[in-house]
Amino acid sequence: MSDFLFPGRHDDDLDGDTLHEECGVFGILGHPDAATLTALGLHALQHRGQEAAGIVSFDGTQFHTEKHMGLVGDHYTNPVTLAKLPGNMAIGHTRYSTTGEVALRNVQPLFAELEVGGIAVAHNGNFTNGLTLRRQLIAGGAICQSTSDTEVVLHLIARSRYTNTTDRFIDAIRQMEGGYSMLGITRTKLIAARDPTGIRPLVMGELDGKPIFASETCALDIIGAKFIRDVENGEIVICEIQPDGSITIEARKSGNAQPERLCLFEYVYFARPDSVVGGRSVYVARKNMGINLAKEHPVEGDVVVPVPDGGTPAALGYAQESGIPFEYGIIRNHYVGRTFIEPTQQIRAFGVKLKHSANRAMIEGKRVILVDDSIVRGTTSLKIVQMIRDAGAKEVHVRVASPMIFYPDFYGIDTPDRDKLLANQYADVDAMAKYIGADSLEFISIDGLYRAVGGEDRNPARPQFTDHYFTGDYPTRLLDKEGETMGRKVSVLASNG
Amino acid sequence: MSDFLFPGRHDDDLDGDTLHEECGVFGILGHPDAATLTALGLHALQHRGQEAAGIVSFDGTQFHTEKHMGLVGDHYTNPVTLAKLPGNMAIGHTRYSTTGEVALRNVQPLFAELEVGGIAVAHNGNFTNGLTLRRQLIAGGAICQSTSDTEVVLHLIARSRYTNTTDRFIDAIRQMEGGYSMLGITRTKLIAARDPTGIRPLVMGELDGKPIFASETCALDIIGAKFIRDVENGEIVICEIQPDGSITIEARKSGNAQPERLCLFEYVYFARPDSVVGGRSVYVARKNMGINLAKEHPVEGDVVVPVPDGGTPAALGYAQESGIPFEYGIIRNHYVGRTFIEPTQQIRAFGVKLKHSANRAMIEGKRVILVDDSIVRGTTSLKIVQMIRDAGAKEVHVRVASPMIFYPDFYGIDTPDRDKLLANQYADVDAMAKYIGADSLEFISIDGLYRAVGGEDRNPARPQFTDHYFTGDYPTRLLDKEGETMGRKVSVLASNG
Amino acid sequence: MSDFLFPGRHDDDLDGDTLHEECGVFGILGHPDAATLTALGLHALQHRGQEAAGIVSFDGTQFHTEKHMGLVGDHYTNPVTLAKLPGNMAIGHTRYSTTGEVALRNVQPLFAELEVGGIAVAHNGNFTNGLTLRRQLIAGGAICQSTSDTEVVLHLIARSRYTNTTDRFIDAIRQMEGGYSMLGITRTKLIAARDPTGIRPLVMGELDGKPIFASETCALDIIGAKFIRDVENGEIVICEIQPDGSITIEARKSGNAQPERLCLFEYVYFARPDSVVGGRSVYVARKNMGINLAKEHPVEGDVVVPVPDGGTPAALGYAQESGIPFEYGIIRNHYVGRTFIEPTQQIRAFGVKLKHSANRAMIEGKRVILVDDSIVRGTTSLKIVQMIRDAGAKEVHVRVASPMIFYPDFYGIDTPDRDKLLANQYADVDAMAKYIGADSLEFISIDGLYRAVGGEDRNPARPQFTDHYFTGDYPTRLLDKEGETMGRKVSVLASNG
Amino acid sequence: MSDFLFPGRHDDDLDGDTLHEECGVFGILGHPDAATLTALGLHALQHRGQEAAGIVSFDGTQFHTEKHMGLVGDHYTNPVTLAKLPGNMAIGHTRYSTTGEVALRNVQPLFAELEVGGIAVAHNGNFTNGLTLRRQLIAGGAICQSTSDTEVVLHLIARSRYTNTTDRFIDAIRQMEGGYSMLGITRTKLIAARDPTGIRPLVMGELDGKPIFASETCALDIIGAKFIRDVENGEIVICEIQPDGSITIEARKSGNAQPERLCLFEYVYFARPDSVVGGRSVYVARKNMGINLAKEHPVEGDVVVPVPDGGTPAALGYAQESGIPFEYGIIRNHYVGRTFIEPTQQIRAFGVKLKHSANRAMIEGKRVILVDDSIVRGTTSLKIVQMIRDAGAKEVHVRVASPMIFYPDFYGIDTPDRDKLLANQYADVDAMAKYIGADSLEFISIDGLYRAVGGEDRNPARPQFTDHYFTGDYPTRLLDKEGETMGRKVSVLASNG
Repeated sequence: MSDFLFPGRHDDDLDGDTLHEECGVFGILGHPDAATLTALGLHALQHRGQEAAGIVSFDGTQFHTEKHMGLVGDHYTNPVTLAKLPGNMAIGHTRYSTTGEVALRNVQPLFAELEVGGIAVAHNGNFTNGLTLRRQLIAGGAICQSTSDTEVVLHLIARSRYTNTTDRFIDAIRQMEGGYSMLGITRTKLIAARDPTGIRPLVMGELDGKPIFASETCALDIIGAKFIRDVENGEIVICEIQPDGSITIEARKSGNAQPERLCLFEYVYFARPDSVVGGRSVYVARKNMGINLAKEHPVEGDVVVPVPDGGTPAALGYAQESGIPFEYGIIRNHYVGRTFIEPTQQIRAFGVKLKHSANRAMIEGKRVILVDDSIVRGTTSLKIVQMIRDAGAKEVHVRVASPMIFYPDFYGIDTPDRDKLLANQYADVDAMAKYIGADSLEFISIDGLYRAVGGEDRNPARPQFTDHYFTGDYPTRLLDKEGETMGRKVSVLASNG
Repeated sequence: MSDFLFPGRHDDDLDGDTLHEECGVFGILGHPDAATLTALGLHALQHRGQEAAGIVSFDGTQFHTEKHMGLVGDHYTNPVTLAKLPGNMAIGHTRYSTTGEVALRNVQPLFAELEVGGIAVAHNGNFTNGLTLRRQLIAGGAICQSTSDTEVVLHLIARSRYTNTTDRFIDAIRQMEGGYSMLGITRTKLIAARDPTGIRPLVMGELDGKPIFASETCALDIIGAKFIRDVENGEIVICEIQPDGSITIEARKSGNAQPERLCLFEYVYFARPDSVVGGRSVYVARKNMGINLAKEHPVEGDVVVPVPDGGTPAALGYAQESGIPFEYGIIRNHYVGRTFIEPTQQIRAFGVKLKHSANRAMIEGKRVILVDDSIVRGTTSLKIVQMIRDAGAKEVHVRVASPMIFYPDFYGIDTPDRDKLLANQYADVDAMAKYIGADSLEFISIDGLYRAVGGEDRNPARPQFTDHYFTGDYPTRLLDKEGETMGRKVSVLASNG
Repeated sequence: MSDFLFPGRHDDDLDGDTLHEECGVFGILGHPDAATLTALGLHALQHRGQEAAGIVSFDGTQFHTEKHMGLVGDHYTNPVTLAKLPGNMAIGHTRYSTTGEVALRNVQPLFAELEVGGIAVAHNGNFTNGLTLRRQLIAGGAICQSTSDTEVVLHLIARSRYTNTTDRFIDAIRQMEGGYSMLGITRTKLIAARDPTGIRPLVMGELDGKPIFASETCALDIIGAKFIRDVENGEIVICEIQPDGSITIEARKSGNAQPERLCLFEYVYFARPDSVVGGRSVYVARKNMGINLAKEHPVEGDVVVPVPDGGTPAALGYAQESGIPFEYGIIRNHYVGRTFIEPTQQIRAFGVKLKHSANRAMIEGKRVILVDDSIVRGTTSLKIVQMIRDAGAKEVHVRVASPMIFYPDFYGIDTPDRDKLLANQYADVDAMAKYIGADSLEFISIDGLYRAVGGEDRNPARPQFTDHYFTGDYPTRLLDKEGETMGRKVSVLASNG
Repeated sequence: MSDFLFPGRHDDDLDGDTLHEECGVFGILGHPDAATLTALGLHALQHRGQEAAGIVSFDGTQFHTEKHMGLVGDHYTNPVTLAKLPGNMAIGHTRYSTTGEVALRNVQPLFAELEVGGIAVAHNGNFTNGLTLRRQLIAGGAICQSTSDTEVVLHLIARSRYTNTTDRFIDAIRQMEGGYSMLGITRTKLIAARDPTGIRPLVMGELDGKPIFASETCALDIIGAKFIRDVENGEIVICEIQPDGSITIEARKSGNAQPERLCLFEYVYFARPDSVVGGRSVYVARKNMGINLAKEHPVEGDVVVPVPDGGTPAALGYAQESGIPFEYGIIRNHYVGRTFIEPTQQIRAFGVKLKHSANRAMIEGKRVILVDDSIVRGTTSLKIVQMIRDAGAKEVHVRVASPMIFYPDFYGIDTPDRDKLLANQYADVDAMAKYIGADSLEFISIDGLYRAVGGEDRNPARPQFTDHYFTGDYPTRLLDKEGETMGRKVSVLASNG
């Protein structure tokens, strides 16, 4: 038994040693099963956030919202819950688990009642000037009920000098900096927007002639919807139901267009392998990473073993390129309970074994080439290498399908503090190899990664993707960060609600 | 406080035939056990609202809030919960049960983060211009997250042009109309305010030299605090901790002073009998009502039977004045479960019997004088008279310790629609007696009630109390009501959170 | 029924200073609304046990059972729950709250599948040879799943050499000693049995021609059923549905007939005042206790104040006999939350005040005569007297409507250890008065109590009631107690289920 | 273990189209962390049962049990829960999900208090004479509280004429027929037993010198325990702590020894790939199945795609043998929420898509060879083939790593009714291929499977494994089945507890 799971941060991450994306979004306009389709779309996007999910629908008279902690499938398949979300338009959001402060009030979509009617918004990504704007808004008399940066957008919409909701939405969006894919619904419109640099993905699809937006194509596939195109960077698409029931679609630019730079980590780790991001199969990109990794860093070995689940496609590519057999040397236990997240110390000591076990028959006496998608803090790698050695491996060589991570992300990926990153803790690869206990350790090159994804080397003058975690080359300014230290306290209120 | 959304229905009232006050408040400044004392105070005020309770504390750095549906004792005696409310200042609120729409977001105190720091407010009562202000605020770009009218106050504070929180609070309070007793805390202050007419009660007390405010004196008694004085109508009392730990107390007037007119229903029904409201023992007032009722409406009978629990003191007064023995002819079942609120139709048919049963030994063959505190719709009276007759009463005479109710309340008492009030459905007392099945029915006179409470007849030129439900003489203008019909929809959002 | 495991502690009793009866039973045969009527009957019997309730019904093919912790009204008014209890025959049981060890497996009725069909039984009371029989059964290969002594009866039925369920039931009942009222249902029968001495009450009623059994008449009243007669001591009544739908009723004697001796504490404390027990109104008996108490122990005073709720009828009798005004000097708070059962130490210190408060207007400056139904450990009396003094009483005289309690009960009343009883801790009444802080303390005499209940003095040769807690005169042998020390461990298993 | 009541339905199986094993067991003696190690062992055995888990420990004085619905990790990592399981000996059980009738009373281990002390037992497998014995026991006066067949063993132990618990255990075991692996603990002993034919697996291991038993070796691996040997068929191993703390181990035979015939489906489907069952690596056996399948049923194709997760190792073997590339053409969604078990009809229509999605990049335009472990009803195969076609496959060839299933299992595997099995619904493989929509469909031969697992063809005279689901050759008599129709009703009681 083996598996091929979606990457993305996981609640049961005992070691805090993975990166986490923080959201997925889905929206549909004009379909009688709007809420059910949104629930299904969010289920397909579950890998982008497992903490909580929310849906807002509009039934022609009233907006309805359901927000629940936990998986989409824990709540939104309940007929009673779906019945509370009537109407032919809906947007939904699935969110990653962060801390104990997490509360329903922070679960998106967020809603505001405007003089011109209601509006709900949800987004994936992060604003690099969110805190700065929040402070300005509070100084201006706004009351922020959540600690979510999405609420800032809502306040900007509410306070906009424009009358029309579309104009208000655009007015607000233009003030936001960072990487985001945002959806909104009003009484007649479904609006989608992607940040000027196009860091976070957003696709447009269609089902029964009705427009759909989703973070990834896998959310279209699950409901049998047709992929239309990517929403472009800096683009705002406004879909509106007309009085006759027809739907108009208008595309506008947010004004500050720049070259698109999609986040490379979507390819390395976050997106589902069956998704097509920026026109490229994620699965193929990952296999290519493995192929390029084998070319750049060959090693003699008996078996190529993926670190499940993220390393599996790259391991397959590595095996195909190298001619060394691909074998499941590590078995993943899928039944990690929901409260394994708060284990006793004694159980915590079993660490990685709660999730993985060595398949001794494929390890014992063998030279093992372990292929992983990335190394963040290295604590998991250390434990896995130890587990492989305990199972009798003669040699353990680790190959990583992404470059070394040196810098934090500010666009919706939850990265540890800089000094916790393995690459910042050791002088060179050999020292890192020694730390994790491997006979050798190698990372794919930046160009190797660029070629795997886009077919070409990195263009230093105008990089095709954003790769700041590897290079420090941030695609936007970082206003919040450059200002006063924000600390962790967005709010002075600690609440149970 | 009132909930804009569902001013009407109450789940635990099988017959929908009682009046409900909607809140109690409690606050304390400078005491190390602030949250525990607040929990105890709210427990003593539980009769003013059983749906939900909230507490906000401030620990010198951060505000903390806990909000829970259910009784105070269900949650706030838990050491874990209390430990989440550190600090030496706290305010709390207990709220009446309304409907399924009720959500934590509506549970007070409500909190806002201001540029100058946080503020939390809670109130008992209702604003007669709350909806009007809410609409103006939304037009001005405010986002209302709750359907509670308390949030209006918070927005007015947040948007006030004043810098100082006290000034902002007063600025906001001066814009509010209606009947209310409000508490607020900031980082250093506990602020209390009572409406200009003094419709809702609010007392000031002291424990270990620390100021306390509470809706009724019974909340002082439970913690052994000393009663200081009533907060005056139109008064704002600001208590502030100074850097040296001492507490200053400053009293200000909201500006539009008017003669005090306490709500008579506090004496008739709402306040706890052991409380002293406006300097008068509630228990004594109620006994006096029974005495005056016996004088105004004597009748030959064998036993005086109270309708529990509201009618008991008046029945005692009636018995003492008339010389007819007081007996428990009706036994109340205290174990009404929490889900009797959604009974099957079959069980609903048992109606009043779930709560009351006839004590046949005191009823059979007797001429029974039933004494009740009030009659609203009359549906319960009808069932109780029937139950008494079924138990073998020879005659049933009903005597009511308050006058006939003709008009709705707009100051925090939840009244049925006008045409549901018994007094508006029948031409005269005889027709009403016939409807409820009584051999005779009599109500105390307005003057009889005034004398029972205050010792003097009603002064028509300047009534000593507010009695609008009996007389239609409202003590304030009713802006929301006079404007457009508010309907039931305050918000276009239906939410599960 | 009693729980072998924890005969002692009660969670909702902050002071551990009251007596507790442990159960109520209700059964009906042949009525289409059997489960609903049983739920209503149990609701009326809620005062006999608030921990948990269970119902078993039979639908002609299958038995159905629902068991839930908490109040009857918390669960059995839910249409979904009632729908799971189809059939025209049912028995139900409500049980007193004991401790955390309490588990659903101990909630009655208990069920056994016999070769001849299923049988469910439930009882109120306690077997004085239950443990002895349990040990014999286990030695004989029986497996006991609960720690309830009711299971012993079930095993005796299952192992009986008789074929017919009635004969098996009688065979089992004849082996049991103690005080009990037991109900059972089989596929066609509803069986009721009362212990030979008639210690626990059990009445027979009728609704729409269908037989009903219940612990007290108040359970008949709530559903409008007619009282037929008491089940006699030592009587077994077998009601059976015949193939034509008619119901036959057969009365048998368990064989060892003895004079009836009803438990006096049913009159003093347990039964609802509106019930008629042994042909006598409980309310009238309690008033008589107050009258006799006033005759035996008059005292000068200004007000007669009942300790709510138990002391109220006696206080009324005392007041009527003495001519001193009856006043509510103590107010009871009905909103004691469900988790006040685990208060912080700080809150526990507020002790009695969570439940009672002094009505200062009726206390201050007065000579108060407090009337209570009984004194067990005296700890509550001490706190109440203190509270009355704190409210300004000039004198406090305590009058108790039952004699001093010296001995434990073994028939279903949960009594503290002997040395915890106030009467065993002090040499005389004056010392006890001093302990509780009263100016005087007096108890009704045994003969005064007998006259209040039955009209005659105690017949020492053949007492009309059982009064062992006052006199040590136990009406049965006490096999378990006389044998080896039972200790606390009935089972060697500690379980979460 | 099997549940008599609901042998069939599985909630989390949207299509009801998989086989389910019903349990895993784990036990340890003499280790201070007994309960924690048992929880970890059960976690590793979670794939054998996800409905509920229970642990019983003994602390030298008292037995302790915790039983919880849900995953091991949901409950048994909680320090509070583990603290309730003190002692140095424990056994645990994890159980498969069946239906809503499932109740804690059926969760193993089951416990009985004997005159000689307590005993707890748990087993994996099923008794083919369990119902027959149950009826005899009830006729003999036993009361069965669960519908679990394990309780039968407990009654036989309780009623055994032997004194010593070991003798009682063996006495009971000898009366049981079927396939089972059973563990028991008494005050000093850990006992393990495997059925005479050795249908269900059971291994013995050791940690820090303390004996361990577990269903599979993966439960030893997770805690770093050493594998000692398989418990033999018909063997009973008794481990006992001696007064000096040393542990004695005694092996006995249950008496009716027969050649071992392990269940082939352990290799095909149930056991974890990293386990070693009967001395053979499950992973290697599965790869061999793929290799033999490729030899027996080659086909031209572009990609070999596993049906996740069961088909993955066989697909890898098929790819290696055929030289056709192995690719992840189907992606599995691991985030199937807990309440997807009760989907709306609308969501149910999305069927297999909730769990699987096609990876279009590897499917479109290709000749796809799908490899699955088995086909039961064929409904899932049909949907997966359709999904692959919808993703653009040119051809779809299905290869199955086990033979056609014609017969039900009676040894602990939950099989659909015979007429629901695909192999019984169609005349031949071509008709079946047509039904599921495949261009071709082939199954491995019986001999091919035998060679893959054991290296040799099936020995018809004395088959090395049990393969009754393929051949109808049951290794034991089937007493319950041959007697009266057992129907669905084991008990006439429907219960919520």
